[in-house]
Amino acid sequence: MPQSNRQICLASHPVGVPSEENFQLVEREVPDPQEGELLIKSHYLSVDPYLRGVIGGRSAYLGSIAEGDVIPGGAVGTVVASRSPGFAPGDVVSGYWGWQEYALSDGQRLTPFDTSLAPMSTALGILGMPGLTAYFGFLEIGQPERGEQVFVSAAAGAVGSLVCQIGKIMGCRVAGSAGSEAKIAYLTEHLGIDAAFDYTDTDNYGDALHSVCPGGIDVYFDNVGGPLTDAVFPQLNDRARVVVCGQIDQYNDVERSRGPRLLWHLIVHQARAEGFLVQQFADRFAEGRDQLVHWLQDGKITYRESVAFGIENTPKAFIGLFSGENIGKQLVKVVE
Amino acid sequence: MPQSNRQICLASHPVGVPSEENFQLVEREVPDPQEGELLIKSHYLSVDPYLRGVIGGRSAYLGSIAEGDVIPGGAVGTVVASRSPGFAPGDVVSGYWGWQEYALSDGQRLTPFDTSLAPMSTALGILGMPGLTAYFGFLEIGQPERGEQVFVSAAAGAVGSLVCQIGKIMGCRVAGSAGSEAKIAYLTEHLGIDAAFDYTDTDNYGDALHSVCPGGIDVYFDNVGGPLTDAVFPQLNDRARVVVCGQIDQYNDVERSRGPRLLWHLIVHQARAEGFLVQQFADRFAEGRDQLVHWLQDGKITYRESVAFGIENTPKAFIGLFSGENIGKQLVKVVE
Repeated sequence: MPQSNRQICLASHPVGVPSEENFQLVEREVPDPQEGELLIKSHYLSVDPYLRGVIGGRSAYLGSIAEGDVIPGGAVGTVVASRSPGFAPGDVVSGYWGWQEYALSDGQRLTPFDTSLAPMSTALGILGMPGLTAYFGFLEIGQPERGEQVFVSAAAGAVGSLVCQIGKIMGCRVAGSAGSEAKIAYLTEHLGIDAAFDYTDTDNYGDALHSVCPGGIDVYFDNVGGPLTDAVFPQLNDRARVVVCGQIDQYNDVERSRGPRLLWHLIVHQARAEGFLVQQFADRFAEGRDQLVHWLQDGKITYRESVAFGIENTPKAFIGLFSGENIGKQLVKVVE
Repeated sequence: MPQSNRQICLASHPVGVPSEENFQLVEREVPDPQEGELLIKSHYLSVDPYLRGVIGGRSAYLGSIAEGDVIPGGAVGTVVASRSPGFAPGDVVSGYWGWQEYALSDGQRLTPFDTSLAPMSTALGILGMPGLTAYFGFLEIGQPERGEQVFVSAAAGAVGSLVCQIGKIMGCRVAGSAGSEAKIAYLTEHLGIDAAFDYTDTDNYGDALHSVCPGGIDVYFDNVGGPLTDAVFPQLNDRARVVVCGQIDQYNDVERSRGPRLLWHLIVHQARAEGFLVQQFADRFAEGRDQLVHWLQDGKITYRESVAFGIENTPKAFIGLFSGENIGKQLVKVVE
């Protein structure tokens, strides 16, 4: 059995943008599974924007953690010892056992992953929570129709890049925004979306939006919020749908951010803004995964990963999300 | 035939709160109906908040008018001469012929009104546009369910007071806000809603909302917007619906008003905010009117009117909407 289990724990609730001091690497003994339990070895850890809410120490819809707790992010790995009838050593599973090298589990809330379908890392990306978020959020909340105009913020991220591709599959015209030249090239050249702009390269989001969406916006898939979203609302078409998936622009706010009041636009355009959590579609996850696997195997969708190495670099990879350092899904690989 | 037709025309596009100088009383000849036309004599004129957008001279979803034009509000009256096969003198009709004593019509876009069902004035209120707005907005956009918590802003207005009553019919708990002691008494004593507060009597909308909706808010029917709506969003329950009907708080804004960014709350509560225009339900107006007549005749709903007298007082009655002078539907009676 392994000798030590390194964990990333919360040292202090961050105020504003998280820093590495908010996290602490702790070394503990690897626990022994008791009857009914299994021991998992992490291969990849997931860093996701929503975790900012979980570690913030404020009211949190996804649960809130205390100082000293292991950061409860997603992870994928292999069963290394099992005293649970449903699992055997070598099984690949994903779950939310957090940022640690080893985890005990009672087998509940684990999702088996079939590595004959795709690499294990996709359990945290295109075939995992971000993939299902894009799939159900865009299709069920956004209700896109063929020929409609779709705009995606954070379009080169784990969720956004899949929304863009599903938009093209659905026969929509797709435009997006992202934060670097490399991301814009990825979107327009590699993913083949119709237009994109670099939000770091413009002072006028309204003009930039109009240039990439000259026909207005029917479905806005919003991962960002803030001034970009403020600029989108006046460009909504009649009966538009705003899929409120994330508001990363505000996750590090110390004071509630302010902007122009937007609801009026919803009346003018008989439009809808709707927030969602992927968990509300839990009873359809199998259907979503099947479709995503199918598209992936048919070459209709693709994905990119940004991978950091070593558990000690997990906080840094997480913090990098807020400055947009990743293209596609940001992962941390913790085994060689 | 009558000798003169008094009209209220737009003297100048208002900036900020409209004043009487923005309007002009003009006396013109009463026109003669040509073949296919009819002449209508107005009995009641309607003043409604949405007209602020129409006369504002800015982009307007309901059309925009020029200086000199007759204000195109709703009206109800009788046919006094007809060369149209579908209409005979004495017929009661409603339409949007505007703030004038007489109007020519080609018979299009007129709605016949049966005065055996209810007084003529209700064609502009509970059985007209405000009634249908409340009916379809609340039921179709709000999707209320028995036992849910409903909160209505401008609850004593033409639309709000009907939403409150339909909420009670649907078995909801209903609370509202309004701007005077008399309105609060009307809501709680006469209409029998569960709780209400006077927004002019509090500095803290959040506390006031919590006191009238201690179980949170499942359906928010918003006629007002602004700081009140800002305070509602944090009190939404999971899967809440915000029916964005009006934003009277902002109609007179010269600069776009700003407030806390609200979309985040939609994610946290998997909630939806949806705007609408009653016209989108036009193909179901007959169904809506039938249900409202039925409820009215059964004594399940009631209504109140605030009536000004004389066409010359129409601008004043309109301007009074923005300081909340009316209880129920504000009308102007233009015939004795």
